[in-house]
Amino acid sequence: MSSLLVDDIGELVTNVAGAGGPLGVRRRAAVLVEDGEVAWVGPAADAPAADRRIDAAGAAVLPGFVDSHAHLVFAGDRAAEFAARMAGEPYTGGGIRTTVGATRAASDGELRATVRRLHAEALRQGTTTIEIKSGYGLTVADEARSLRIATEVSTETTFLGAHVVPAEYAARPDDYVSLVCGPMLAAAAPYARWIDVFCERGAFDADHARAILACGQAMGLGVRVHANQLGPGPGVRLGVELGAASVDHCTHLTDADVDALASTTTDDGQSATVATLLPGAEFSTRSPYPDARRLLDAGVTVALATDCNPGSSYTSSMPFCIALAVREMGMTPAEAVWAATAGGARALRRDDIGVLRPGARADLIILDAPSHLHLAYRPGVPLVRQVLHNGVPR
Amino acid sequence: MSSLLVDDIGELVTNVAGAGGPLGVRRRAAVLVEDGEVAWVGPAADAPAADRRIDAAGAAVLPGFVDSHAHLVFAGDRAAEFAARMAGEPYTGGGIRTTVGATRAASDGELRATVRRLHAEALRQGTTTIEIKSGYGLTVADEARSLRIATEVSTETTFLGAHVVPAEYAARPDDYVSLVCGPMLAAAAPYARWIDVFCERGAFDADHARAILACGQAMGLGVRVHANQLGPGPGVRLGVELGAASVDHCTHLTDADVDALASTTTDDGQSATVATLLPGAEFSTRSPYPDARRLLDAGVTVALATDCNPGSSYTSSMPFCIALAVREMGMTPAEAVWAATAGGARALRRDDIGVLRPGARADLIILDAPSHLHLAYRPGVPLVRQVLHNGVPR
Ligand SMILES: [Zn+2]
Ligand SMILES: [Zn+2]
Repeated sequence: MSSLLVDDIGELVTNVAGAGGPLGVRRRAAVLVEDGEVAWVGPAADAPAADRRIDAAGAAVLPGFVDSHAHLVFAGDRAAEFAARMAGEPYTGGGIRTTVGATRAASDGELRATVRRLHAEALRQGTTTIEIKSGYGLTVADEARSLRIATEVSTETTFLGAHVVPAEYAARPDDYVSLVCGPMLAAAAPYARWIDVFCERGAFDADHARAILACGQAMGLGVRVHANQLGPGPGVRLGVELGAASVDHCTHLTDADVDALASTTTDDGQSATVATLLPGAEFSTRSPYPDARRLLDAGVTVALATDCNPGSSYTSSMPFCIALAVREMGMTPAEAVWAATAGGARALRRDDIGVLRPGARADLIILDAPSHLHLAYRPGVPLVRQVLHNGVPR
Repeated sequence: MSSLLVDDIGELVTNVAGAGGPLGVRRRAAVLVEDGEVAWVGPAADAPAADRRIDAAGAAVLPGFVDSHAHLVFAGDRAAEFAARMAGEPYTGGGIRTTVGATRAASDGELRATVRRLHAEALRQGTTTIEIKSGYGLTVADEARSLRIATEVSTETTFLGAHVVPAEYAARPDDYVSLVCGPMLAAAAPYARWIDVFCERGAFDADHARAILACGQAMGLGVRVHANQLGPGPGVRLGVELGAASVDHCTHLTDADVDALASTTTDDGQSATVATLLPGAEFSTRSPYPDARRLLDAGVTVALATDCNPGSSYTSSMPFCIALAVREMGMTPAEAVWAATAGGARALRRDDIGVLRPGARADLIILDAPSHLHLAYRPGVPLVRQVLHNGVPR
């Protein structure tokens, strides 16, 4: 059993609330790693001996980012559609079908190469856990293979057969819902931890979404919902009704939506259903940003994620999302950093990540900066100097 | 004489206008480098032999970014001020004096370390030319040493003794102007190519700014102006009056300001006085963005730069500025890429950088992407895979 000491940490964000505020900040700290887990956290002056040592040289150390919402299994890109949108065309979500066509036509090897490239790109930027959705296959075989490939790099996989009704089912959406709930779910479930539905005008209405999510729950999958992105709608309340771990986007919320989310608050002061905000999507579709302040002030737990996908948010950068959340969504730097680490973990119902305490996974990042504040203070700058994933330096 | 071929370029941005549009885009191209200069540009199929070869593997290659506005010589950081501002305090520029105090107290070695750290950080992100201003010393000795240290990493150095009136001269600003025009300029000029003034309410008015800039011109320095950032004012028209290479910020412009800039247009269709826009400052001070579209439509040449400084824009990322310009300022991806390369070169009155043609400096970047579009399409992602500076891979 080899041990590793990360020493001389100027500012350690543990996310263990207490004397160090909500981020559980410790100064002049050290972290001992053994067997891929955090074995000890304490003052650098008291650090135990270890087989190896990494000198953080006074830098800030944080839990690795937890990106709880990403669509990495696809083929092709939509750079031209992006450029057209920046020239004034609105985002309607219709371009998803472009990617569906390219994804169906791609080989397993092509899809695998894209997943691995984006997974590695995210890891270099400090993302040590990433949820990956299907949703560009939309046939039994293509959804199953998308998830199978996703499981090669992540255990957090989500069946999103109900991303959009594919063109061949446009005239008979009920039949598509039956397909999703039946053979597609059966083929996908072995590779999925979660089920998700794009509940939005033009995609799936509340009745269809409820039926699909209930089928997934019956198969043992946890619930997540794409909700209230393009306009007000039933998605958030449906998620709360079904005990979803997270409702994602939350750009257009009524007071009733916010109240419903706040009503899920548990004894630990966090809401059981997290509001996951995806500011990369608003950035890349030039849409109004969700109001994180309103949610936080109502007591709702907020996570930040990238929504990485080729149509509406082709960023894999959690630091970029943090900077946007502070600039545009009323979050403090500390709230945004928490949402991008512990918040993402909560959105995935995980207590072994997004936190640095004994027993947690040794997923941590060393910044080229003395404080977590720099993630918002230095936007666009690649500040992640080193990543440890499962205790292994990358 | 060793030669280097950058081969199998999927999309080469040359900035040589013509059949490839304003960006002079060539497909399936190659670039031959000799003696730190571009020796040949053409189709990959016709590429000459070379001593060494870099395989771009179908990626996009662009001229290195030209960051024509940065303040890298300082000590301390202002992360706490940033966090307070994000919590609601307005940016007034008053915090500059915090950095002046820290900079005066710093050793040469400390200032040198910061300059080199930020210069290297910018280079990793594709910036192969960076202008560096003084302006946090504000004594004869501290301005001169700031510029001396800046010349160690850049030939594009700018004397900004008129950044703000230092506290000890607050009651007698005329005396400070005399100091700047006299002994301070004399001590700074040997290390500077340019002179700049922060012409803004609370800093220097038009008469003071004109006097200082005229003194600099008499010493052979070129003129640049910090103009119209915090509100409307005389800075832009003063810059045009004095033949400035660039007026920088341009956030608050009247029609007369835009007309004045457009009136400087020369035979090549570019304005002699460039409007350099610094969206990192608006991002980090939560201010309205400048309207690039209005300037472009009026025929004004636009450059993008970072304004990298610890108070109002602590980014060194030109890709981040490109993404903001597209999201927030009405620029197309092509216009933003041009502004961050050729535009910056124009703002520095250079024709050997920001362009890839025989005789130009071999400053170029290879992206982890097939197109320049990805710089805006993939915000926050570090897409610069490799940098060649003076023909040398970094
Ligand atoms: Zn999504
Ligand atoms: Zn400036």
